[in-house]
Formats: sequence, C-alpha cells, structure tokens
Amino acid sequence: MSFNSFGNLLKLTTFGESHGTAIGGIIDGFPAGVKLDLDAVQEELNRRKPGQSKIVTQRKEPDTVEFLSGIFEGISTGTSIGFIIKNTNQKSKDYNHNTDVYRPSHADYTYDQKYGLRDFRGGGRSSARETANWVVAGALAKQLVSSIKINAFTSSVGDIFIDKPYQELDFKKTENNIVRCPDENSAEKMISKIKEIRKAGDTIGGTITCIAQNMPIGLGEPIFNKLHAELGKAMLSINAVKGFEFGSGFCGARMKGSEHNDIFNADGSTQSNLSGGIQGGISNGMDIYFRVAFKPVATIMSNQQTINSKGEETEIVGKGRHDPCVVPRAVPIVEAMTALVLADFYLLNKTRKA
Amino acid sequence: MSFNSFGNLLKLTTFGESHGTAIGGIIDGFPAGVKLDLDAVQEELNRRKPGQSKIVTQRKEPDTVEFLSGIFEGISTGTSIGFIIKNTNQKSKDYNHNTDVYRPSHADYTYDQKYGLRDFRGGGRSSARETANWVVAGALAKQLVSSIKINAFTSSVGDIFIDKPYQELDFKKTENNIVRCPDENSAEKMISKIKEIRKAGDTIGGTITCIAQNMPIGLGEPIFNKLHAELGKAMLSINAVKGFEFGSGFCGARMKGSEHNDIFNADGSTQSNLSGGIQGGISNGMDIYFRVAFKPVATIMSNQQTINSKGEETEIVGKGRHDPCVVPRAVPIVEAMTALVLADFYLLNKTRKA
Amino acid sequence: MSFNSFGNLLKLTTFGESHGTAIGGIIDGFPAGVKLDLDAVQEELNRRKPGQSKIVTQRKEPDTVEFLSGIFEGISTGTSIGFIIKNTNQKSKDYNHNTDVYRPSHADYTYDQKYGLRDFRGGGRSSARETANWVVAGALAKQLVSSIKINAFTSSVGDIFIDKPYQELDFKKTENNIVRCPDENSAEKMISKIKEIRKAGDTIGGTITCIAQNMPIGLGEPIFNKLHAELGKAMLSINAVKGFEFGSGFCGARMKGSEHNDIFNADGSTQSNLSGGIQGGISNGMDIYFRVAFKPVATIMSNQQTINSKGEETEIVGKGRHDPCVVPRAVPIVEAMTALVLADFYLLNKTRKA
Amino acid sequence: MSFNSFGNLLKLTTFGESHGTAIGGIIDGFPAGVKLDLDAVQEELNRRKPGQSKIVTQRKEPDTVEFLSGIFEGISTGTSIGFIIKNTNQKSKDYNHNTDVYRPSHADYTYDQKYGLRDFRGGGRSSARETANWVVAGALAKQLVSSIKINAFTSSVGDIFIDKPYQELDFKKTENNIVRCPDENSAEKMISKIKEIRKAGDTIGGTITCIAQNMPIGLGEPIFNKLHAELGKAMLSINAVKGFEFGSGFCGARMKGSEHNDIFNADGSTQSNLSGGIQGGISNGMDIYFRVAFKPVATIMSNQQTINSKGEETEIVGKGRHDPCVVPRAVPIVEAMTALVLADFYLLNKTRKA
Repeated sequence: MSFNSFGNLLKLTTFGESHGTAIGGIIDGFPAGVKLDLDAVQEELNRRKPGQSKIVTQRKEPDTVEFLSGIFEGISTGTSIGFIIKNTNQKSKDYNHNTDVYRPSHADYTYDQKYGLRDFRGGGRSSARETANWVVAGALAKQLVSSIKINAFTSSVGDIFIDKPYQELDFKKTENNIVRCPDENSAEKMISKIKEIRKAGDTIGGTITCIAQNMPIGLGEPIFNKLHAELGKAMLSINAVKGFEFGSGFCGARMKGSEHNDIFNADGSTQSNLSGGIQGGISNGMDIYFRVAFKPVATIMSNQQTINSKGEETEIVGKGRHDPCVVPRAVPIVEAMTALVLADFYLLNKTRKA
Repeated sequence: MSFNSFGNLLKLTTFGESHGTAIGGIIDGFPAGVKLDLDAVQEELNRRKPGQSKIVTQRKEPDTVEFLSGIFEGISTGTSIGFIIKNTNQKSKDYNHNTDVYRPSHADYTYDQKYGLRDFRGGGRSSARETANWVVAGALAKQLVSSIKINAFTSSVGDIFIDKPYQELDFKKTENNIVRCPDENSAEKMISKIKEIRKAGDTIGGTITCIAQNMPIGLGEPIFNKLHAELGKAMLSINAVKGFEFGSGFCGARMKGSEHNDIFNADGSTQSNLSGGIQGGISNGMDIYFRVAFKPVATIMSNQQTINSKGEETEIVGKGRHDPCVVPRAVPIVEAMTALVLADFYLLNKTRKA
Repeated sequence: MSFNSFGNLLKLTTFGESHGTAIGGIIDGFPAGVKLDLDAVQEELNRRKPGQSKIVTQRKEPDTVEFLSGIFEGISTGTSIGFIIKNTNQKSKDYNHNTDVYRPSHADYTYDQKYGLRDFRGGGRSSARETANWVVAGALAKQLVSSIKINAFTSSVGDIFIDKPYQELDFKKTENNIVRCPDENSAEKMISKIKEIRKAGDTIGGTITCIAQNMPIGLGEPIFNKLHAELGKAMLSINAVKGFEFGSGFCGARMKGSEHNDIFNADGSTQSNLSGGIQGGISNGMDIYFRVAFKPVATIMSNQQTINSKGEETEIVGKGRHDPCVVPRAVPIVEAMTALVLADFYLLNKTRKA
Repeated sequence: MSFNSFGNLLKLTTFGESHGTAIGGIIDGFPAGVKLDLDAVQEELNRRKPGQSKIVTQRKEPDTVEFLSGIFEGISTGTSIGFIIKNTNQKSKDYNHNTDVYRPSHADYTYDQKYGLRDFRGGGRSSARETANWVVAGALAKQLVSSIKINAFTSSVGDIFIDKPYQELDFKKTENNIVRCPDENSAEKMISKIKEIRKAGDTIGGTITCIAQNMPIGLGEPIFNKLHAELGKAMLSINAVKGFEFGSGFCGARMKGSEHNDIFNADGSTQSNLSGGIQGGISNGMDIYFRVAFKPVATIMSNQQTINSKGEETEIVGKGRHDPCVVPRAVPIVEAMTALVLADFYLLNKTRKA
C-alpha cells in the first residue's frame, strides 16, 4: 500500500510540494550494472521544464536533478537511487491571494476535505511539478529498456488533429517545433491556436499519442496487470488527463469482429494491428500505440466566481504564470511513464518461465 | 507483486481456467461485522451468466458461488473470504479442434510466447469466465459501501447510441430489457442490431457507461492512486476493453478552460460537472461518471485464415457458443469493478486523517 | 497490503477456518514450465497431518489437497495455482462447550476484541490447521528450488536437546522416528518425554532446527528484505513460535569479534560459519541454519479458571483432541516456509543484475 | 515489491550510501493533521549518532535531518514526507585501503557476488548509517501513537546481564549512562567491559530488550502479519542482529503448558504474561516485551587474513573509527522500528471493523 509509488519490481516513490525546498524520489529495484547517461536524464527534464518556449508557462525553474545514491562511477549498483530537484523559483506571493480560495476545477477543495488542511502554495502536492520526478525515473527506465523505441507527440490541440496515421510520421521531427508535433503543417496550426488562446487569457485541451516500437513479445501479466491496464493507469495518473484508449480504442466499439480481427502472418506478426500490439494483456511484438486526452488547464486569466474555505462566495482573479496548453510539456511525461511501465514488465518477465 | 490480485486494502486474488474444475478467489481485507446478503451476490452472478437471453452465448453454466470461509452466521468475520464457482459445462470438445491453432485477436499466441505452454481449452486463464470471480467480489464490495449507488448500463452498440444525458435516464429500467439499456427506444434498436449481427455470424462492439451517485467526498489518493486512475485500470482489466474516459473525457480535449471549469456553489457542489466528480484524483461528492469501450468479440462464425503453434498456415472454422456482443453481460462486471475500487478507497480513507 | 498473504514474487494467499467447508489458497507468481510431482506435495501434507502417530493429536483428517488451476498436464502454466483441502472431520461438538469461553493463551479473546465476533469452532481462523495450506505451497516451492537441500528436525523437547552439531547428523534418519529427530538416542528420550507429558494431560514446548544446504550465492535483499529477516518473519508466523535465531544467534551476543568473524578461504567460502550462511542479508553460499522456539500447546487436559465473553468467571474443562507437543508436526511446516522464502528470493534475484 | 521499504499503510522507503552525498527517505501514509515536534526527531537522531560518548565510534557526524515535504506549518499534511541527512564527514581515505579487500563477516563479498559491483566506501549501502533514516521515521511514528510507551534498553553486554525483571527497572534512568542500561549497577560493569574490549582492539556483542506499554488491544493481523512476526522482521533488519524472542521466548520452549498459560482476570487482563502481550498475533493489552541479540561488530583493530575480489589471499589491517559494541547506539533504532510497526498496525486496525 503506497500512495506515492508507481510500479512493482521497478518502483518509483516520490515526495514534494510545488513551493517546498525540493521535490524528489527514490527508484527502487533498478538492476545493477547498467551504465547510465545522466546527461540524457537532464535533457528529458529540459523537455518538460517551464519557460522553454513562448507557448508554455513563463515561470523559470532550472529543474536540475541531483542523484544522491545508487549510482557509483556512472553505473547502477542495484541499491535504491535517491534524487532531488530543488525548487528555486517559488514566487509564493503569486499565490498568496489564493490561500483561502478554492480555484475552480483544481484540487484545493478536495484536498481540504480529505486531509483537513493543505499546503496551498502553488497547488502544493497537487501541482504538476511532481511530474518532473516521473521524468527523471522514466529517463532511467528508458536506458534499461533501450532497445524499445518510445515516441510520444502532440496529436491534437483543440480541434486541430494530425490527419495522418502514425506510420507516415517522422518522429525525429517531434522536437523540431515547440508544440512537439512531428507533422509540420499541423504543428504550425497548433502553435497559432495556442498563441491565440493564450492571448485571450484562456486555455485549451489536446491529445498525445504514444508509440512503442521494437517491442519484445510477452510483456504484461494477463489478469490484473494487463500491459494496457498499467499503461492506462500510468497515463490517468498524469495531471489533467481525462481519457485513454489503445489500439482501435473507442472506434473499436463501433466495429464488427470480422473487421476488427488481426489476421496472423506466418511469423506471428499480424496483417493489421487494431489490437494495438497487445493481446490478452500481453505484448505480441507489434507496435503499441495509445492516445491520451488532456483537458484544458483550469487556471485561466479571467476572473471566476468561486468560494473560500469558509463557504463564502468570492471571486478569483486570474494571475500567475501558467500554461495555455499542457500538451507540449506533457509529451516527455507520457514517454517517461510508458518507459516505467515497460521496464517494470521487462524485469518481471524474467521470472515468468522456470 | 501479485499478478492475479486487484486492490490494496480490499484485495481480490483469483484463480481458474475456463475448463478446469473450478474458478474462485480470495477476498482479503473485508472488514468484520458486515451483515451479508449472499442471495444478492448470486443475483449479480446471474446477471453475468451465459445463456440468460437470446443475445448472449447459449452456453449453459449455472455459475453458483460457494463461500468457504470468512462469513459466520451471515456476518463477515474479518478473515479472508474464500469462494469457488464450479465449472459444470465444459464442452472441451468444442475447443479441441483449436488446440494448436492461434485464434486471431485472442491471447493464444501471446500466452504461448510468454509462458512456453498454455491450457488451450476454452481460452484457459484468458477466458472472460474469470470475470465471474470479479462479480462475486464486487457484489460483496457493493454491500460494504451500500450508501453509494452504482449503476452501469449499455450506452452504445455499434453505431446505436443513447442520445440523452444520463440524468434523464431511469436506472430502474436497465434490467427491463436483455441488452441492459435504460432507454427503451435505444434498447430495442440495440437488440435488433445484435440479433442481425448474430445471424450474420459476426460480432459487434459497444460501450458501457457507469455512474456512481451519492458519493462520499475524499475518496482517492492524489498521486499514483488517483480515483480515476484506479477506475481506469479496473475497466481496462476487463476482457475486450479498448478505452476509458471519465467526466468530459476525449471531448474535454477539444474544449477551452473557460468552458470546462466547474464553478462552485456555496455548499461546495459545482454548477457543471465536467470533472466527473473527481478533482486532483479525489472524489468531490458530485456524480462520478465514465465510459468504457468494448471491441467486438474476436470469435466469429466465419472461417478465418491463421497459423498454428508450428507457424504453419491453417484455417480456423467458426464454431462454439460465443457472444455476438459482450456488452450486455459486461454491465454487472463494470459495476463490480467500480464497487471494488470505491470500497478499497473507502477503507483507505479511514486512515488518512489522524 | 494483504493480511493473508506471504511472499513477494512468489505469493501465497490463504483462507479457511478450522471447521468450515474447506481451507485453501492461491499461489501466485509460480513460473511456467516446471514439471510438478503432486504426489510429493501430498506426502508433505501427510507428514503434517493429525493422527499420524501416538504422540500427536488423535484427530483423523485425511488432508487431501485438490489442485484447481495453474497446472496443465502436470506442468505449471504460469497462471495462479488454486487449491483446496476439504475439512472432513469437524467434530464441532467437541468445541461447543467453549463457544463463549476464552481459552487461556489462545486467540479467542484477541479475535473477539479485534473483530467484534469470531468463528469459535475449533479456533476458527486462528487454528494451526491453516498451516496445511503453507505445506502445500512450500512443497511446490521446494520443487522450484530443488537444488537447495532443506532439512528441518526436532532439536529439543522440553529439556532434552540433541548434543551434537548438525554436521554430525544424518538427515535421512529424521523420518525414521515419530518425533522427527535424526539423533536416535535423543529421539527415544523425546518420545518418552512426550508420552509422559501426554499422560499427565499436559503439553510441552520444543525447538526445531532447519538447515539449507547447497545454497546459491546472492539470495536476499540487503535492507528490509534481508534473507534472515524474511526467514524470521516466516517462522514467527507459525502458530506457537516464540523465538528465532540464526547462525550464532543469542550465543553470538556473548562473543567477541575476534572469535565471531568468519575468515575467508580463497574460494570465497569461510572457515567457520557463525554468520549462518548470510552476510548483510544476502546468502554467501555456506549452509544456512536457524533455530525456532515453540511454546507448549495452550490446550491442556486439566481444568483451568477463565472468563467468558461477558467477563464472567468460569472454568474451562480440558477436552478435545490436541497435540501434547507441536514440534513433530511442525517440522514440515518449517521446511515449507523456508522453501517459500528461498524460492521467492530465487525468482527476485533474476531481476537484480541487468 | 520494494527492496528498500518497510511497512504497509505507514511505509518508509530509503536510500543512501555511507559515503555518498546524503542518505534519506520518504515516509508514505502518515495521516494528516498530526502536530509534529521536529526537535524531538533530532533528539532521537542524537541518541544514535556517532561520537556521542567514549564507548562508541569517534567518527563525528552531526546527522542533521532536513524535512523537504509533507509538513506544513508544523502539521503533517497527509502527503509523503521526504527527508535527507547529509553526509558531512566521509573520510573515504580511511577506507581506500579496503577497496578491493573483502572484510571478514561484512557484506563486501555478498554484495559483489549479488550485484557484480559495489560502492565500497565505508560499506556503501550495507553500512549501519542507513539506520539513521529509520530513526527519523520511527521518531515521527512515535508521535503518531504517542499514547503507547516504548522503552528499549541495553539488557546485556557480553556476559553481563541485568538480573532483574523489567518491571523493577526505571526507564527514566536509561539515558543517565552512556551504555543505556537503566540498572545502574549493571551499567557500570557494562561500560567497564566495553572500555576493556576497546582497548584490546576487539568488539563485543550484547542484547537489547524493548517494552511497549499502555498497548491498545487488537493490533496485528493474525495470519502472515502477526504483530510479533512484524516486530521480529523489523529487528532482524537491523545490522548485526542474530536473534529475536518475545514473551517467554526460547525459555518457553522448555516449559509445560500448565506453567505457560496466562490465566485471565475478569477484565480480560492476564495474571501472568508469558505470551508477551500478544495472542494469536494480536495485541491483548498487556505489555509487549521482546529481546534482540546483536553479534560483536565485525570490524576489529587486529590484522585478519582475508581475500580480495580476485580471490587472492591478503591481510586486512585494523583501522578506521568503529564501535566496540553496537548496542548503546542501537537502542534508539530498536525503539524506532518498534514504533514503525505499531503505528502501521494502528492505522491498519482502523479498517478492520465495518
């Protein structure tokens, strides 16, 4: 029973409030003997960090990870890996006006109801700042299952969707633009849309698609730890996520069996892949693909009617430095959580045959 | 680490193959002193059992649950509750022709690859027969959190959708028709559709919507055990599920923050409920609602090209007794898993304040 | 969080009351592809069963295990292994006089206080009958780590101790006598002692020593899952156990470092083995040995003053069929729990190097 | 599955090597709303820290704990509590001569065998420095179950034992002397003994006894999470521990049932307490008492023959700053682990009745 842990054999446990001294975590179960590229970890953090472009929050936070244990002379030792990321730019004053006020569609009210108190500075524990911890752990997990190619990208912003199948995309282009969309044409429209939304003091939702390629066969446990169930849980853990679908997804619910079945080739691969690379909860070696829905960020720059902790009606004034669209910064988070799930099942699978 | 367990404080562990002697499970952590209605458990099983109507598989299986421990004179004792459901109608012969053949979009291939062997009779462990165990546990969980009203129903079959918000539906009507749709007009169309599909030897997908009302505030742990993440994992564990969304879901990804935010009333309730009753992973007392996508059943009555375990091409002939649409029988499964998640968090929440 | 589970990767979950329909369990995480000797499992159960000799309880219970899943054509399939042992000889009448009475040094009082009620027939869940489940799981675990030789034996009854180091004993002789002591001379004295105690309507304590030989190096996780800590927890889980020591044990607490250190040979083995085969929580390849203390059985045949659930003073009359000394029947239980611990760590160790 | 975690609902996860930047941990599941005395936490650390007296290691390390999250304005918030303790006095040079050499009865050899490499500086992860983390968590746990009085003390050093029952001791005197023995006469002899041993460059073992008074009834889960089994596991997790016994312990194995049974008083208390406050794995309200055996510290100041990682014979020269007897500094560790176990079961018990 762990409220702040993710994973089974490879387990991440985290701590940290948005405006405390530091956030951080412990990665348990990472095997010994892996030569680690710690610069690559920092690069992943940089993909997530605030202030990186015009279409994300202008908060400046270096987000530098410090590893405190479990790595010796660049190699994992098999002991627990502790790390922290110091909070350096906590403008608590930006938030002081919200101390007692419940921001609509934030977690202020539910935290207060559940715990009887809360660290209200910047959302405290409910802040998406927590996901920086996940990116650190995911970046190490990626190195553990480095043969698998994990690529996430922005597949829609509001009503702007990429209109191509993922097979026609070049994932090398994802980092070429600030919205992290590998389709240049769509990327341009998305960026314009976010700028327009931002100017209006509003926010907008979007989706991220993630593809895992070069998959080993056999990952996933077939009853309650189905590969897609763990991926779904991982994605639904990310702040602002409202939905998850894999393979044919919600479209599959409108199809007939004769259309939906993936016919085998002689080598065990399948002609179509509506299954999304998973059959019976276990990877079959085909590409895994899934889509994640993000709601628009709740913090907007217009005034909103609300209540405070005494149940008094009040107005909340739009201030602070927030993201007009969470999706571009969430791309590395989706990849990180995918890597954690796959690495966990990879380790587990070593124990399933005698 | 448990491959066949679900839940934390309230934990279900299961066993059983489709054509073995029996399936069953152990419910651990059920509190002492709950007066149990065991007939109500059997009634839930009856909602799920095969052969109950013209639009489900015609297999006959009484699915009688026997409780072996943990209940004394009708009251839970706080010790583990063991139960079994005997398999009485295993027509293994129906499946013998499939021994060595990989059925398309089934788990035969992945089991063989993962484990090196499999109990091939009727899908073995991968059979949805396993979910009878879940219904038993869920029926007990419902009694533990009996103040919460959990109602699932068929919200679409193929392209036939209920076109009303759930607030306009009368859940008492769900059991009035064999497709378990509380909207009579839609129900009729859905039943016709399934009959037509069945006649064609095909299968069809659909969706189930589930509503939890009269929710206590504060259920859910806000980082990796978010209420909606556990619900998502639970739903994605059900055979044939391809997607999960709650509250505004995938539609939310197309909205603006100014449209999406739920403005508070003075009593802490909200004017709209796009959040789906959950903020920051914690229930806020509003209705929880979510939608689950089911693919069409993979077993169809036409011949399909496939391979066997030696990699030889062969043809699979459609035979056996299978469901043309899984959705009507999955309604009690969705409710059961919802009850398990809510009961687990209900127990957990007793420990979160000093 | 599981109150009725033991183990991590290899996990046993159990249920069952002494006088219910059946007891049983689920073994999760057992790898696929192990050819199993199920007769050997039953033989282990026979070593534990009541009525096997003059110095144990004369209750007759066949204790036949039925496997319900997870084994196909004699080979483990990697899915969960469910099993039950039916209760056939529940003379509930023997216990009816105790319904409301708290037996001294039994768990009646604490169960009632903790849960508010209890199944009082034969001790209900607190009965050592539960350990039959453990023997089943341990017998399978033995087959998983069959290269390790696990031998437990009775090392003392009351004040009668084997006065030889274990290296001088021939474990093949353990089963030659009914007290399970491989030293014939001591065995004879122990048997006489137990017969004498039994005649007096009394009971007596004893110790069991267990040796694991041909150990692989590297089992055990060095912080909170130290090999000896898990062994200790396993032994302290057995009914009536009051103490556990390994290697030099309590004697080691009287020694000096210069006497206690185990000096290495060139091949990594050690000249002495006061460490008991474990250094820093990890097996070093030397023999593991430990000793377990069992108190005298609390049920005696004399009348004892006590109270009932209303707090009224009453007298309990010695009746029923109980063991004068628990140790002979506990030998297979100690071996079973040792096997479970070692098999769990064996699987886990497959994941600790990249 | 967590190799560096302890506890269930209240869970401590730790990291850190002896000579890394810092050690630390995350406490998960601590309930919200507890007013915390953080000075009291530091005081517990001071009881454990090196350099505190003449009879412990002369290493100087301030061992200052920094809390990073989970506490807001002095009150626990219900979110995870992260903390670190910086390593300030890592004289790695003292250890450099041991890089490649396996110290007898240390964990050097087993770590190398298990992981293929190790951080050899000061024992790395196997150093008892780790237990500073446990003292931090235990000090918070004590505040959670503050009504329970937990008192540990040195009950023997080598052959010098306190010759009084614990009921005759005044625990307020434990901190009056540097060996932490509440019996002044014995304390004096123990201190002399340790000084003598130290002078000889040797080390010596000892025992710690721990008493938990004012116990609530009902703590402990009766099958695999028996209260004494968890206490045993906790104690056996402490470096250098070789044995654990509670209540009558190993003496109980020599007794008869008629002597050993604890007869009830009308109020449910018992006349004797050979059970040690636990019946059937559940606390009965009587004092819990147990005894823990510590071997002599393996690092001695004489030269010892040994091998290095290449299997070459070599000699290890006694150097460094080590404890002649681990027991005085282990007293707060025993209390801390006891508090963690009791607090965990206290939380758990809130969920066991409907």
